[in-house]
Amino acid sequence: MRTIAGTAGLLRSYDNILILTHLRPDGDTVGSAAALCAGLRALGKTVFLLPNPELTEITAPYFQPYAAPEGFQPQRVVSVDIATTNLFPENAMPYADRVDLAIDHHPSFERFGRDNYVRPSAAATGEIIYDILARLGPVTAEMALPLYVAISTDCGCFAYSNTTAYTHAVAAALIQTGIDVQVVNKRFFRTKSRKRLALEAAMLGAAEYHDGERVAVLAVPLALMERFQAAESDAEDLSALGGQIQGVDCAVTMRELRPDVWKFSVRAGPRVNATEVCARLGGGGHAAAAGCTVEAPFEDAKRRMLDSIAQAVPDFTL
Amino acid sequence: MRTIAGTAGLLRSYDNILILTHLRPDGDTVGSAAALCAGLRALGKTVFLLPNPELTEITAPYFQPYAAPEGFQPQRVVSVDIATTNLFPENAMPYADRVDLAIDHHPSFERFGRDNYVRPSAAATGEIIYDILARLGPVTAEMALPLYVAISTDCGCFAYSNTTAYTHAVAAALIQTGIDVQVVNKRFFRTKSRKRLALEAAMLGAAEYHDGERVAVLAVPLALMERFQAAESDAEDLSALGGQIQGVDCAVTMRELRPDVWKFSVRAGPRVNATEVCARLGGGGHAAAAGCTVEAPFEDAKRRMLDSIAQAVPDFTL
Repeated sequence: MRTIAGTAGLLRSYDNILILTHLRPDGDTVGSAAALCAGLRALGKTVFLLPNPELTEITAPYFQPYAAPEGFQPQRVVSVDIATTNLFPENAMPYADRVDLAIDHHPSFERFGRDNYVRPSAAATGEIIYDILARLGPVTAEMALPLYVAISTDCGCFAYSNTTAYTHAVAAALIQTGIDVQVVNKRFFRTKSRKRLALEAAMLGAAEYHDGERVAVLAVPLALMERFQAAESDAEDLSALGGQIQGVDCAVTMRELRPDVWKFSVRAGPRVNATEVCARLGGGGHAAAAGCTVEAPFEDAKRRMLDSIAQAVPDFTL
Repeated sequence: MRTIAGTAGLLRSYDNILILTHLRPDGDTVGSAAALCAGLRALGKTVFLLPNPELTEITAPYFQPYAAPEGFQPQRVVSVDIATTNLFPENAMPYADRVDLAIDHHPSFERFGRDNYVRPSAAATGEIIYDILARLGPVTAEMALPLYVAISTDCGCFAYSNTTAYTHAVAAALIQTGIDVQVVNKRFFRTKSRKRLALEAAMLGAAEYHDGERVAVLAVPLALMERFQAAESDAEDLSALGGQIQGVDCAVTMRELRPDVWKFSVRAGPRVNATEVCARLGGGGHAAAAGCTVEAPFEDAKRRMLDSIAQAVPDFTL
């Protein structure tokens, strides 16, 4: 395990670097990789990002300027925001056993690099990359913009519980470089597709409440996705929706993956242990957020989940 | 107009102080007043907030510990976050011509105090109160919590365009005092009432799109409020909803105030000047957000608005 100074020192010694991002790339892996690439290029190095086939319309613009040309042969490989090699995109698999440096903030980080740096208290890997870049030279606007994307997306625009004083301090330093964060805020936090809004409205309209209205069950059957011709990008993180209903401290979201195969996401307050609820159905996670998959028709799958919640909460009422 | 040091000096010279908040009190006026009260009490002064009859369930807890007892006779009167005496609650009117110090961040601030401090670049009056308190002594957790409420609510949890590097720097300093901002974030930014969610779903379900889907019209007829037995608190800031629809750069929200009396709120991107659109119907505002009121049946009122938008946008298509 390296120190932050040691990690910066390693990077200063590298050249011809390939940076890897994770499967289903989010703002943090894309923004961290882009900023690191920009920062190392500012030192005169040759650096590229390994193309990631799953970029979305809103993450791609931050990634593409740094995408590696076909046939780029790196001397050094660095991964950012990847907890385990299981999360490597397929085209990164050839590098799985030759990562020189792995930088991450997940508690579950598996230290698969030859050198590793992890800081689980960081709200985003972007916070760590900021610290590294600040040691390598001035943090310019070109680095600050993707870093703002990385940090703001991983902390829900400073609303999630991983946000710390340091998260805000780094945001202040990034904005000080003169970047326009309004475009980022609007794009990532204040825009929803019409299909997404239709999905949310339908889910809320059909929501069921139990246990004195403290347990909500929201469903996304395949038929609903088809009805709105919704894409996967319209359905991202739909499990957060139930968690914002006033008075609800256990929000269950049922997503139909294939006919009669339901993926449950449970978001719970202190009264309900989401892991316990999901473990009984073969899943797991954290106390506040857990998941499991149940193969059964809708009513049956829902009943099993409610039974499991009833076992976890002594005074449960349907 | 005082400097920040001069303003802090004035407050240090005061005692037996009454602090005023504005009509329809929001997080900024309540949080700023509570923090200033706590800070001045820490200097040994007698300070109270004039009771505000319109506190909501989520703002009241920050206000009540400092509410003035009946019959409190102040020597000094200070207003926070109030742009004009027109925004004084009725019980503050007797103090309208004897405000010793008025502190505000609105560009429209009318300098109605004997002394005045205004900083329009501040995202919230809370930023100014922080600067004042930092000059008067250590900013404690008791002051920091309401200040975080003040600042975060006025900048949409750091997502609105008024958020600056300084806004984040102050947030970092506040969190450093050890306050639990997660309760605030959850309560103000990640919770919606079931009635509010039902209103939003119904509005989106019935939304009309024009001009190549760039103009959206969302309506809140009286019948909709009645259908869900929604209260005023469920309908706050509903005009923000249309602004988040992907591809829409002119969101029109029509709220029926009384039968056939429609209050329009227009939120627009750079293509459409919202003031121009609303001015033609007797209203006004800013280029990005404006409003007007039209007395007419729904279809007629809507038609007048669309006609006005069509005049402002040369290539408008229904």
